[in-house]
Amino acid sequence: MSTGPLTGKTVIDLTTALAGPYATLLLAGLGARVIKVENPARGGDTSRNNSPYVTADGLSMRRTSDDDMSVSMMLRGRGKESILLDLKRPESREVLRDLVREADIVVENYSAGVTARLGIDYASVRDLNPRLVYTSISGFGATGDHGDRKAMDTIIQALSGVMMTAGEPGDPPVRFGLPIGDLVAPLFAVIGTLSAVMHAERTGEGQHVDVSMLGALTSLVACEPFDALESVGFPLRTGTYVPRLAPFGTFRAVDGWFALCGPTDQFAEGVLRAIGRADLIGSADFGTRDARVANADRLHGLIAGWAAERMLAEALAALHANGAPAAPVRSTAEAVRDPDVTARGEVVPLVHPKFGHFDGLYGSGLPVVFSRSLVDMSAPAPQLGEHTDAVLSELLGYDEQRIASLRGAGAF
Amino acid sequence: MSTGPLTGKTVIDLTTALAGPYATLLLAGLGARVIKVENPARGGDTSRNNSPYVTADGLSMRRTSDDDMSVSMMLRGRGKESILLDLKRPESREVLRDLVREADIVVENYSAGVTARLGIDYASVRDLNPRLVYTSISGFGATGDHGDRKAMDTIIQALSGVMMTAGEPGDPPVRFGLPIGDLVAPLFAVIGTLSAVMHAERTGEGQHVDVSMLGALTSLVACEPFDALESVGFPLRTGTYVPRLAPFGTFRAVDGWFALCGPTDQFAEGVLRAIGRADLIGSADFGTRDARVANADRLHGLIAGWAAERMLAEALAALHANGAPAAPVRSTAEAVRDPDVTARGEVVPLVHPKFGHFDGLYGSGLPVVFSRSLVDMSAPAPQLGEHTDAVLSELLGYDEQRIASLRGAGAF
Repeated sequence: MSTGPLTGKTVIDLTTALAGPYATLLLAGLGARVIKVENPARGGDTSRNNSPYVTADGLSMRRTSDDDMSVSMMLRGRGKESILLDLKRPESREVLRDLVREADIVVENYSAGVTARLGIDYASVRDLNPRLVYTSISGFGATGDHGDRKAMDTIIQALSGVMMTAGEPGDPPVRFGLPIGDLVAPLFAVIGTLSAVMHAERTGEGQHVDVSMLGALTSLVACEPFDALESVGFPLRTGTYVPRLAPFGTFRAVDGWFALCGPTDQFAEGVLRAIGRADLIGSADFGTRDARVANADRLHGLIAGWAAERMLAEALAALHANGAPAAPVRSTAEAVRDPDVTARGEVVPLVHPKFGHFDGLYGSGLPVVFSRSLVDMSAPAPQLGEHTDAVLSELLGYDEQRIASLRGAGAF
Repeated sequence: MSTGPLTGKTVIDLTTALAGPYATLLLAGLGARVIKVENPARGGDTSRNNSPYVTADGLSMRRTSDDDMSVSMMLRGRGKESILLDLKRPESREVLRDLVREADIVVENYSAGVTARLGIDYASVRDLNPRLVYTSISGFGATGDHGDRKAMDTIIQALSGVMMTAGEPGDPPVRFGLPIGDLVAPLFAVIGTLSAVMHAERTGEGQHVDVSMLGALTSLVACEPFDALESVGFPLRTGTYVPRLAPFGTFRAVDGWFALCGPTDQFAEGVLRAIGRADLIGSADFGTRDARVANADRLHGLIAGWAAERMLAEALAALHANGAPAAPVRSTAEAVRDPDVTARGEVVPLVHPKFGHFDGLYGSGLPVVFSRSLVDMSAPAPQLGEHTDAVLSELLGYDEQRIASLRGAGAF
């Protein structure tokens, strides 16, 4: 039987909310053993208390029983083990130190300064395990002094410039509907973590891996030479259309929208043919890329006029028959049900540990198809503290008496 | 001296345009040796022919000399070696096979079916190197039959549902201003590649790693339980404000916009204090989260009215002084110049191999700060075919006569 490519690796997961837990979710999906440490004093990860919940009767705005689980936790907790540790207590920190000795990786996304105050930052635990890779995800990075600047996704989006890349010049800022600040940092955190594990395997040296949400998102912004484009006269915000790539934009058919993208001569000819204007192929106004850019408004107007009288399926069929790149603008509900996407496991059904799957409840898969290795994003999320005893006895070798004594002392 | 965590790994880079080259750019930044194979018949990677160019006199819409280089290539080619190979010729494919024998990783993003036709798909080369990790990035994945469906970023955005997550209900689709379809797939491709290399090091087994742009982006969409939220009455598109997290939104001050996010009692109190309405703290209408959600329009109106008469700096100072999470909405030009971000190497100056750096020309860094390993995104991009002779003689051990004979035969 095949296993995940990270089989044999153990991750101590000190994360909460979205950015950190998404990183460890990916590591779990790739086959690592992820032990999620939750704070009993606060009811565990804050995601456990995000409405809505899955109950025996389906979705509910409010929790109705101890078995209910938030959709957020069902998504982000998949394939992880949950143990309780109140890290404000010295007994609990001692347990954590034992866990770190057994681990390959620690991932944390505490607010700045918290791990140092608790004595569980990289400097405090590195001597326990010289090969340890210790990954921190924070709003602004572990370097510099950021005081108590908060790092919610919308704050990161605002600072990164992405809000000024969508919409048209003069429009208000446009917030991306995906929490892209929360989602991009963990991808870089996983890249950094795996790279550092490879380094540790080659050299025996662990290290700290420090990823900033703002830096991660800003680096993506800097993948496009927006400055250079603007300085030579290409505006940054172009709304529905992109004149410099004309024909390029989203167009409204009778029953829905489609996106179209035909910057080359070949694609543009296909578009003109599809809209019944083969007469314009090779014309002075539309025959070359420069001409199409100069006359983009007219070209887009012709396409919009044609689309306005056609059903979406008819418009797309005509464009595809003529080799023009075009696609329907789908809702998220349609997109996550795409049979090709679900067949590849890029989106998977969510399963409640007790109540099973409810129709229509989907979650992220791990969008990598390996020819040999297994990826698994189908395991349900744990209930709070479900694995405390098992991890302490099996991984750490604590006996029943020691576990009972720790519990009695309030360690968990 | 420290080195990158992927030091010692060799990548054969068969990618063009954006998604593939961004993946190999990250591998190069992490210390791998990346050998970019370019087609002499087409002037190499299409990115070399994207306007604008950097010339001896700065940015220009048109190329003015052979030394000029497109900004796209300056960004995406950093730290790579460039060799020429016309893979339609059998002599060139033989050279490629020799390269594959020496490599740890191949990355390609050809259109569907092309690698098989050329005889350089994973099935055709795996026997040359059983430990090889062969990564493909495509629009819709290597499984299934997608015909000649095109996979430009805007097509992927349309299909993934992201265009319907921004804006307000009833608005036209909103295209993200970042080419997020092109940028997210390579992050997953790097994660898959590194995971597969770890598997190969453990087991001696290479494999194919298959990443779809549509699947990668749709998996991010599925990180948010949009369906579940809608089914319990939280609309998907909420535009500037998010009522269920009120106070939450972007607000216009006299001289600019700011984002604000205060969903908890503590943050909301800070906001009320900042806007001079401490009298509303604990009120029936705004004292609890449920009350604020129910009265979100009024709450947002109060904040907007306060902001409208204040300078941005003054508004932010008042919010921060009261512990309310808020930040200016920055332009991309401001964001990529953030001194914290550039100090961490998350954005770096772009350097032309001959003309150096021009003020204001920035590119993506690698947003991971390692405590031991070195990351380097500062090396300039190669000119087309700059390393052909060096790679063939040093890595493959070809003698001068053999190289001359291959050149004579049109292999490069």
